[in-house]
Amino acid sequence: MINVSILGFGTVGSGVYQIINENNKELEASTGKKIRVKSILDNRKSVNPDIAGILAEKFEDIENDEEISVVVETIGGTGAAYDFVKRALLKGKNVVTSNKALVEMYGSELLRIAKEKNVAFLFEASVGGGIPLIRTIGDAFAGEVIKEIDGILNGTTNYILTCMTEEGQSFEEALQKAQELGYAERNPEADIEGYDTGRKIAILSSLACGKEVKFSDIYTEGISKIEKVDLEYAKQMSMAIKLCGSATVDDNGDIAAYVCPMMLDRDNPLYMVKGVFNAILLEGNMLGRTMLYGSGAGKLPTASAVVSDILSIIKLGSNRLPIEWSEERAKVLPMDKTSHRYFIRFKDVDEKHITRCRRAFADSEVIRLEGLDEFAVLTGYIREKDFNLVSESLNDIIKFIRVR
Amino acid sequence: MINVSILGFGTVGSGVYQIINENNKELEASTGKKIRVKSILDNRKSVNPDIAGILAEKFEDIENDEEISVVVETIGGTGAAYDFVKRALLKGKNVVTSNKALVEMYGSELLRIAKEKNVAFLFEASVGGGIPLIRTIGDAFAGEVIKEIDGILNGTTNYILTCMTEEGQSFEEALQKAQELGYAERNPEADIEGYDTGRKIAILSSLACGKEVKFSDIYTEGISKIEKVDLEYAKQMSMAIKLCGSATVDDNGDIAAYVCPMMLDRDNPLYMVKGVFNAILLEGNMLGRTMLYGSGAGKLPTASAVVSDILSIIKLGSNRLPIEWSEERAKVLPMDKTSHRYFIRFKDVDEKHITRCRRAFADSEVIRLEGLDEFAVLTGYIREKDFNLVSESLNDIIKFIRVR
Repeated sequence: MINVSILGFGTVGSGVYQIINENNKELEASTGKKIRVKSILDNRKSVNPDIAGILAEKFEDIENDEEISVVVETIGGTGAAYDFVKRALLKGKNVVTSNKALVEMYGSELLRIAKEKNVAFLFEASVGGGIPLIRTIGDAFAGEVIKEIDGILNGTTNYILTCMTEEGQSFEEALQKAQELGYAERNPEADIEGYDTGRKIAILSSLACGKEVKFSDIYTEGISKIEKVDLEYAKQMSMAIKLCGSATVDDNGDIAAYVCPMMLDRDNPLYMVKGVFNAILLEGNMLGRTMLYGSGAGKLPTASAVVSDILSIIKLGSNRLPIEWSEERAKVLPMDKTSHRYFIRFKDVDEKHITRCRRAFADSEVIRLEGLDEFAVLTGYIREKDFNLVSESLNDIIKFIRVR
Repeated sequence: MINVSILGFGTVGSGVYQIINENNKELEASTGKKIRVKSILDNRKSVNPDIAGILAEKFEDIENDEEISVVVETIGGTGAAYDFVKRALLKGKNVVTSNKALVEMYGSELLRIAKEKNVAFLFEASVGGGIPLIRTIGDAFAGEVIKEIDGILNGTTNYILTCMTEEGQSFEEALQKAQELGYAERNPEADIEGYDTGRKIAILSSLACGKEVKFSDIYTEGISKIEKVDLEYAKQMSMAIKLCGSATVDDNGDIAAYVCPMMLDRDNPLYMVKGVFNAILLEGNMLGRTMLYGSGAGKLPTASAVVSDILSIIKLGSNRLPIEWSEERAKVLPMDKTSHRYFIRFKDVDEKHITRCRRAFADSEVIRLEGLDEFAVLTGYIREKDFNLVSESLNDIIKFIRVR
């Protein structure tokens, strides 16, 4: 019998409870062991009658219950969650979490403690919801040199951009719709300014390079400045605008990692990812490019990722392919050392101005939208530092968007 | 030191050799053990000077070499490959293969022998090349009830259909181009008639339901009858035609499994899969839909899948989540018990005939292409048996294509 304790009984926690009960037979068949939720800690003192009998009074009851071998943390944040997870690991309990803030902020320390105690600290559900992303990096890509990670990791922003593209809505209209549907929070900053994506790409970058990559080192730009007209330009160029989290690892093991809106052309597999779905492209030196696509959020997909971590603990114990990184801080390249193509909008359609702007960037082409008193230029690949230098010398830039 | 022996030194075998050598440092880092290719068996007596020193004379030398713990089979077919794999397992060696014919034909027996001998028989590379499909089913979907598998599993046919769609080529022209580029074999039957996809969906269905599903039980229809005009209709309906391998598992554990060209609408994530790429949608009862996308073939992606199996053997030994099925034969539903929407082309555009054909299928709509002396009808969901009954009563059917 495997006894599990769940900390936090919100969306994900109650989903884990539901799956362990509803798929109990399959879980037993796949592991050879019975699994049950022995206790639940929830400070809202939920009156759900199903769980009344197994509600724990306080964390100490779980911490000191020797029968509990797996603790599931779905509280969120880095306060009580950090305290409880650390104490559970120190007591020699395996921990599974869906909490990206915790993993990004304290992952290195918690992974070290788990290793010292010979238990698992797993966090599949922290990035990409139900998409088996972290285990794919740890398992299928073990032995690969990961060159690049590129993903749509936030369903809220992707939903907003999809509405703007397909229904011609403004950013504000699309955000409001996302809030009405429960896809965006009342305070949507963490999603729309790219912080959520930034924390996720920090975790994935750490896995890819084996060193600690902090969110604070990652250049982060959200989608709140994207306008309808940007999407009209994108459409004319057969491109889509997506909020991408990206990381590349160079031959020295240095990381470039950033979050920003990207124009993607139709051949990019991320182009077709619509609505609240997430997808991530992984490029290994031998495996080439693989994309994983699925529900990046939602009660059951996320809870299912938690349960798959529990299964892996039961079946594999400590004999797992390592999903970890060291406490050494990775060197993250500053944004001005990265290279991109750029889509740049200019005011004023004077022909001389157009020619000057086009020529300022070699290999660039001019894009015009009918009826607008502005134009745009699409450049070839330039280092961001050089792009900044050239664009400072030009007048009337409305905005730019990087192009993959 | 882990000693590996490679049987067959063609595309995949030489790729495995290359990866073990070129990524040796990463492989050692990820497993904690040194890995080397100790011997290679190749009946062409290849004179590649790199491997001259480790060429085995005969299989018995490998079979009796107690240092060899992992045998990689890349010979193909079910003759020598079956003999050697079985003998290697019986000698207590782990086996990794990229050979779908072997896995489809003898998988149940070889899995049983591996279990009896407490060694691994792994075959990630046999389906979907570099896409980590089999381990995703065994690992991330362990404990899920798999409801549906739907995939583009053959790069050759997808390349041909892409050329026909995007460049307006005929089937024959596109096939010839695929042959010139080395994507299609001189005898392309196994690809274009869907047999390759059928073997792969047999393996995936077996994994999904835990019982043996044989290729011979799977309805298989290829793409050789797809015409340019079919793709023009598809385009007008904002659909794409793809060769899909599909399996659904009902609540009794019965399987419906078939391979046929499918019309997919734009919201289907498989719609955008172009060229030689493969992709597969998995639907679990809790996880929802996940898609994996990547290189379904190619030397290094396929070899990389073999190497990831080797890593898994080194690291996990027999403590793995089960990737297996029993020798019990699954009950596969006959095609006439499956349900689909149908796209049906009719000769003769007489208005009465059109009305009769449309009314014969409730909820159907008529599609016309300008300048053609024919029309088409798109039906709602019908059981194939009923579809057959109704269509027998109608004149002038040119062809039909199922619609997802």
